[in-house]
Amino acid sequence: MPNCGFAEIFVYHAGSMHIDEGAEIADLPDLLSDPKNVVWVDIRAENPDDVPAIKDLLLNTFQFHYLAVEDCLETRNQPKIEAFPDYLYFIVHGVKPDETSATNFITKELDGFLGVNYVVTFHIERFRSIKNVKQQLCTSPFACQRGSAYLLHQILDQVVDYYMPLVDDFDEAINRLEERALNVRRSNNTILEEIMDLRRSVARLKRISHRQMEVLYRLSHGEFAQIPENVLPFFRDVHDHLMRISDLAESYRDLVGGLFEIHFAVISNKTNDIMKTLAVVSANILPLTLIAGIYGMNFENMPELHSKYGYWLTLLAMGLITTVLLIYFWRRGWITKEDPPENPIERGS
Amino acid sequence: MPNCGFAEIFVYHAGSMHIDEGAEIADLPDLLSDPKNVVWVDIRAENPDDVPAIKDLLLNTFQFHYLAVEDCLETRNQPKIEAFPDYLYFIVHGVKPDETSATNFITKELDGFLGVNYVVTFHIERFRSIKNVKQQLCTSPFACQRGSAYLLHQILDQVVDYYMPLVDDFDEAINRLEERALNVRRSNNTILEEIMDLRRSVARLKRISHRQMEVLYRLSHGEFAQIPENVLPFFRDVHDHLMRISDLAESYRDLVGGLFEIHFAVISNKTNDIMKTLAVVSANILPLTLIAGIYGMNFENMPELHSKYGYWLTLLAMGLITTVLLIYFWRRGWITKEDPPENPIERGS
Amino acid sequence: MPNCGFAEIFVYHAGSMHIDEGAEIADLPDLLSDPKNVVWVDIRAENPDDVPAIKDLLLNTFQFHYLAVEDCLETRNQPKIEAFPDYLYFIVHGVKPDETSATNFITKELDGFLGVNYVVTFHIERFRSIKNVKQQLCTSPFACQRGSAYLLHQILDQVVDYYMPLVDDFDEAINRLEERALNVRRSNNTILEEIMDLRRSVARLKRISHRQMEVLYRLSHGEFAQIPENVLPFFRDVHDHLMRISDLAESYRDLVGGLFEIHFAVISNKTNDIMKTLAVVSANILPLTLIAGIYGMNFENMPELHSKYGYWLTLLAMGLITTVLLIYFWRRGWITKEDPPENPIERGS
Amino acid sequence: MPNCGFAEIFVYHAGSMHIDEGAEIADLPDLLSDPKNVVWVDIRAENPDDVPAIKDLLLNTFQFHYLAVEDCLETRNQPKIEAFPDYLYFIVHGVKPDETSATNFITKELDGFLGVNYVVTFHIERFRSIKNVKQQLCTSPFACQRGSAYLLHQILDQVVDYYMPLVDDFDEAINRLEERALNVRRSNNTILEEIMDLRRSVARLKRISHRQMEVLYRLSHGEFAQIPENVLPFFRDVHDHLMRISDLAESYRDLVGGLFEIHFAVISNKTNDIMKTLAVVSANILPLTLIAGIYGMNFENMPELHSKYGYWLTLLAMGLITTVLLIYFWRRGWITKEDPPENPIERGS
Amino acid sequence: MPNCGFAEIFVYHAGSMHIDEGAEIADLPDLLSDPKNVVWVDIRAENPDDVPAIKDLLLNTFQFHYLAVEDCLETRNQPKIEAFPDYLYFIVHGVKPDETSATNFITKELDGFLGVNYVVTFHIERFRSIKNVKQQLCTSPFACQRGSAYLLHQILDQVVDYYMPLVDDFDEAINRLEERALNVRRSNNTILEEIMDLRRSVARLKRISHRQMEVLYRLSHGEFAQIPENVLPFFRDVHDHLMRISDLAESYRDLVGGLFEIHFAVISNKTNDIMKTLAVVSANILPLTLIAGIYGMNFENMPELHSKYGYWLTLLAMGLITTVLLIYFWRRGWITKEDPPENPIERGS
Repeated sequence: MPNCGFAEIFVYHAGSMHIDEGAEIADLPDLLSDPKNVVWVDIRAENPDDVPAIKDLLLNTFQFHYLAVEDCLETRNQPKIEAFPDYLYFIVHGVKPDETSATNFITKELDGFLGVNYVVTFHIERFRSIKNVKQQLCTSPFACQRGSAYLLHQILDQVVDYYMPLVDDFDEAINRLEERALNVRRSNNTILEEIMDLRRSVARLKRISHRQMEVLYRLSHGEFAQIPENVLPFFRDVHDHLMRISDLAESYRDLVGGLFEIHFAVISNKTNDIMKTLAVVSANILPLTLIAGIYGMNFENMPELHSKYGYWLTLLAMGLITTVLLIYFWRRGWITKEDPPENPIERGS
Repeated sequence: MPNCGFAEIFVYHAGSMHIDEGAEIADLPDLLSDPKNVVWVDIRAENPDDVPAIKDLLLNTFQFHYLAVEDCLETRNQPKIEAFPDYLYFIVHGVKPDETSATNFITKELDGFLGVNYVVTFHIERFRSIKNVKQQLCTSPFACQRGSAYLLHQILDQVVDYYMPLVDDFDEAINRLEERALNVRRSNNTILEEIMDLRRSVARLKRISHRQMEVLYRLSHGEFAQIPENVLPFFRDVHDHLMRISDLAESYRDLVGGLFEIHFAVISNKTNDIMKTLAVVSANILPLTLIAGIYGMNFENMPELHSKYGYWLTLLAMGLITTVLLIYFWRRGWITKEDPPENPIERGS
Repeated sequence: MPNCGFAEIFVYHAGSMHIDEGAEIADLPDLLSDPKNVVWVDIRAENPDDVPAIKDLLLNTFQFHYLAVEDCLETRNQPKIEAFPDYLYFIVHGVKPDETSATNFITKELDGFLGVNYVVTFHIERFRSIKNVKQQLCTSPFACQRGSAYLLHQILDQVVDYYMPLVDDFDEAINRLEERALNVRRSNNTILEEIMDLRRSVARLKRISHRQMEVLYRLSHGEFAQIPENVLPFFRDVHDHLMRISDLAESYRDLVGGLFEIHFAVISNKTNDIMKTLAVVSANILPLTLIAGIYGMNFENMPELHSKYGYWLTLLAMGLITTVLLIYFWRRGWITKEDPPENPIERGS
Repeated sequence: MPNCGFAEIFVYHAGSMHIDEGAEIADLPDLLSDPKNVVWVDIRAENPDDVPAIKDLLLNTFQFHYLAVEDCLETRNQPKIEAFPDYLYFIVHGVKPDETSATNFITKELDGFLGVNYVVTFHIERFRSIKNVKQQLCTSPFACQRGSAYLLHQILDQVVDYYMPLVDDFDEAINRLEERALNVRRSNNTILEEIMDLRRSVARLKRISHRQMEVLYRLSHGEFAQIPENVLPFFRDVHDHLMRISDLAESYRDLVGGLFEIHFAVISNKTNDIMKTLAVVSANILPLTLIAGIYGMNFENMPELHSKYGYWLTLLAMGLITTVLLIYFWRRGWITKEDPPENPIERGS
Repeated sequence: MPNCGFAEIFVYHAGSMHIDEGAEIADLPDLLSDPKNVVWVDIRAENPDDVPAIKDLLLNTFQFHYLAVEDCLETRNQPKIEAFPDYLYFIVHGVKPDETSATNFITKELDGFLGVNYVVTFHIERFRSIKNVKQQLCTSPFACQRGSAYLLHQILDQVVDYYMPLVDDFDEAINRLEERALNVRRSNNTILEEIMDLRRSVARLKRISHRQMEVLYRLSHGEFAQIPENVLPFFRDVHDHLMRISDLAESYRDLVGGLFEIHFAVISNKTNDIMKTLAVVSANILPLTLIAGIYGMNFENMPELHSKYGYWLTLLAMGLITTVLLIYFWRRGWITKEDPPENPIERGS
């Protein structure tokens, strides 16, 4: 079995002060047989051609259960944890912002196995969090010194750390959409689409963080023999982070629902304003038009028409009627100052 | 008891390398008495005339509990699992898309019994999943070699596999309806009916997958002696698939609810647009009509009428008023470019 | 204690092949003392004058707890089950459709006691389900042969069987209301009232079936010594029926909520249509009226008026303006074909 | 320690046939020391001056825990129950209708202690339920004969009995509001305020009855040594009453939410009606006005004007146009009969 | 290690009658070694420069777990409690009103450790509640006499006491917003923004009080050896306060949701009123304008024009038509009295 490009192996030899990065896949059986070593095999299945070799490694070298290996190689799984006699199999999800959309995010699956003296991680996409752990390890073997469970904690902690900026992005996206919904100047389907997208994303975030929280709850409550007592508080810490994210996702769901209501309310308000304008214009001008119409009739016997001041009196009457009506509507609150064009860029183009 | 057309019998004789498809119902007592055999009896009650013979087979040959047999022959049941001393009785539901409607699906009931060395399945409708398992068995007796519980897993796994495309169809149906709701050009009850249908279907999917998940939870957690320890992970796998489907159905429910809100918002926006047009037209033309009306009055003494440029000045004034009002409404955002006819097929026919 | 009309007594003497219907209340102590008998006392308190005698029977002959007897004689209770050392006291609810309203149903309380060799049922209203059980008993003593718990199962099974047609009625009522909501031609408070009534009924059905399900859950899980092991699956069967009804009631609640949304959406659509008509009419005719108004002015110097073809050119211009505007509105989708009068009976009478 | 006005003491001497109402506070230590007595001390802290004496009584004579006494003297607590080694401390809430508002109710706090041979109740406001129990005791010492726990049950039963009329009032208030919402003739903020008030009250009722139910659940499930086995069914009975109230409060919440929807729907319907009227009037009269306007133009060359029957033909054309349009709108369902003035009192004053 | 400004140390020497405020950090090891002392170290990390010294104190003097110290120095944590072998680590949140906004509040994190004879509190912001406890201690060492757990209770009790006024503020804010929503005279985005802010704040309050309640539930149920049996009722008391706050926050959420509905309903009502005015004006004046238009036509043969009373009869007819229409609309409830300008300050400026 040749050492190929898909796997990076980090070995901490008990008592040594550094991480050995030179090991090859062929060395694994020896390395794993010494319970004092801590081995981390990070597999990145970038190239589909590597899959058979990876499968062989997992099934034969590590002797993982057939089903776990199948799940591992597949994508589109839920976060979960499963205990096998000698090792744990877990799936967690990393997240990264979607470059093309402020209301979306991308999930990346990270599968792995935790044994008494090894951690195996398997992923297809690049994880910044795993890169960070590797860099830390190169600087100091501290994480490995504390055993494989602590090393796993380091990895999960980094993965979960990338959730928080995403949650903050959502917070901002909600605020921005709220701002836009409040200041919308014309009917706008773009806002509706974005609200719907945000709703989808928040639901996804909630689903994922919730399932992940269950995984970490089980990891942090002493259920598995692979995780020693003294490492549990560290997993509890990761669990608490996820709980916070799950709580926030839940409350974002409410707020996103509120965005629809705001949009409705703003449109209702605008329709109300338009109706007021229409009603005020009609109620002011229609009576005057009627008067003009009356004095435009062609009856022979219309004494007013012959009066010297008839025309001027009529104009005066019209002016009076308008004044009275305007005062009436102003008192009813139907005549209002124009809103300032808060957001001149969006204005009726 | 003659071998009739309603049952297909597959026998795996311990140690042999193939499946025996030639057994008859009369052979069953002998076959079942050897605990090393694995027997699968697949009953399809296509013909109502077969029911008495099927009942006789289940009650007398297999000696199943009277109530379980009754439940089995009836339809319209919920997924469930019930333990009897020597066997398990289960109901699960298969699904298939409804050819006549993109927002609907059809459920098919699959009843069955799992004994220590046999599986009995009973169904009225054709199951593609069962056909698949039969084909696999003909190719290789692998599933039977692992015992009756593993064979049952194979069947359930295939049944559940047909849920996923359905869920994907829903996803697409929601997206398509969202698209249509956003681009609707005229009031449209068809969309409302489809949203309501989708809502019904999603609720049904959620109900069915949830109950089914409970069945598989119990199957996969070592509650039943009929399922050996080493087969449990396989059932857990099926359970995880259903959990994913149930989660998605739950989130679809939210999204379908959001479609109503989108429809409302789009209609509100359109009404708002129409109101704006009406208000702009009225507010522009009514004042001009008043002016025309005034100069159409028949008063004798109206000096303007005799002025040489009265007419032209009046037209000029009308033009000015219109210009000022148009600028005012444009600044308020009431005059907007027409939306492009995004979906010309739906356009006001 | 004379045998009076309020109680019917059915006795199955152990080993006999028929039910004895001739027993009197005075015989009860003797009959109950033989543990091999199975006695069913069905009490119908049609006549308030019988209440003291019934109370006497329950308190003295059967020696039931004072509180249970009080609860039994009262109405307006919730389904429940209570264990006393020697017997169980239960309340369940039967249902029947309300003849006067398609969206309502009537609940009838059935109280009862289950002892080791007797069942007592107490009700005020007539139960078709109890009548059915009596008829079955007259034909065959089968139910009694299996003991008092099985007899109780027979009664409860019949009571619950009458839920299903009711649930189907609701299904139909929702479909019918949906149909009407979609095709409503004028604003209609009747629909709103019916939706509200349906909502109330569905909430009631859910409340009742849920509590009843709890009763049957406890009856079917071996909690009570009065119910032998081999009768449990029968109670489980009744429990499953109720679970199905409760699930459906839950999903109906969602659908009834959706009816309001449909009504809103349809009314919004109609208002939108009306607005379009108004806007098209106004926007087409107001400009023409203005033109007519202008040429109706009485200025002395209006050269067009003296032109030979002025009138005809004006009419032509009006025609052109109308054509252009109609094309514009048609392209915007504001001019639509009239909906066919789907439901001519409801049409504006 | 003088006998003062704040406490009424009822003593049942074991074996006696009546209640002794003459005891003074100074006698309490003696009375309590005989475990066969049953003592009920009802304290009403009407007068703030009595508080120090009451505190002294509770802390020194009864030796209750400092915190319980503090809680007892304070108001604005939640229903709860707390076990101390020798006694139970409980808070429950009584309710009474608010005279000034049909959609509100008032809660009164009742604190108390239950010891092995005594009950202490403490309240500031008058409780009709406590008065009822006192009257019953004066008639018959039955309640006391059964011990202090049974006496407490009597008191709680009476307190809870006053919930039911309140719940019925809510039922009526919802029906009345629904009726008014359906028949509202003009926009009406009063209804909105009342719905909001009702919503608050129903939420309060739910909160209180739910917490109280927990108290009674614990009292009725044998958790506390102070309550003998044979008294438990009586507490269970009170618990069942509260469960019913809590269930109803829950379903009222849904119905009150529905009132908003009804109000919206009715207003939408009315707006729709108004729009129809406006559209029909405009669409009928505007074209006629245009025709009149055209023949009012002052062109010299308008041949129709000189025709003998031009005027009459024009009037005929106008009549025809109106007829056609009215038929058209009638067929579209836009012309409807006026609703009868169902509620003439509310009519547009 | 010099005594620096970040920590205040209160020592109660067993048996003494006062609190010693003069201790320095260097004295801590000695003070802590005597289990009869009660030591409270209150650390306020106002100055970032103090952080290293604080870290040193916590890690080395108290020997707290590395992770707990990290959590302690960080902010943005959830309330939680964690048990370590010798001490408890807790995070709770204090609240204070936000001066700049009536619908917002500020949370302050309070971290701390409870050991067998010491309490350590750590905070960055000023806590009025901690100041209060210090003042009480200076007056009387009572709290310390009861041990460190009781001292912690004192602190938490004070922290939670500041929640109640905040909850009352929310109550008032909801009432005020409801009042404004009901009396709004013109479309108003300010109200929408405030409702959205309130919704956020209530969700935050619910989240925080709920998590905090869990902390106090665990503290008050005998889970931790550090809290003696006799102090548990005091923690239970704090738990009950939080439960009340959490319950209220939950019900406020519903009420805030209702504010949106009220706003919608009020705007709908207003739009309805405007439509009525528009419809009444149009339906009254348009027919009269038509009549005037007809008699303004220039047909030669219009006999009415030559009638002596034609003009007056026409005016009379116009008056009659108006009267009939006004009566008709009044009967339909479309003509209503103007609402009194309830809130003249907000009126259409």
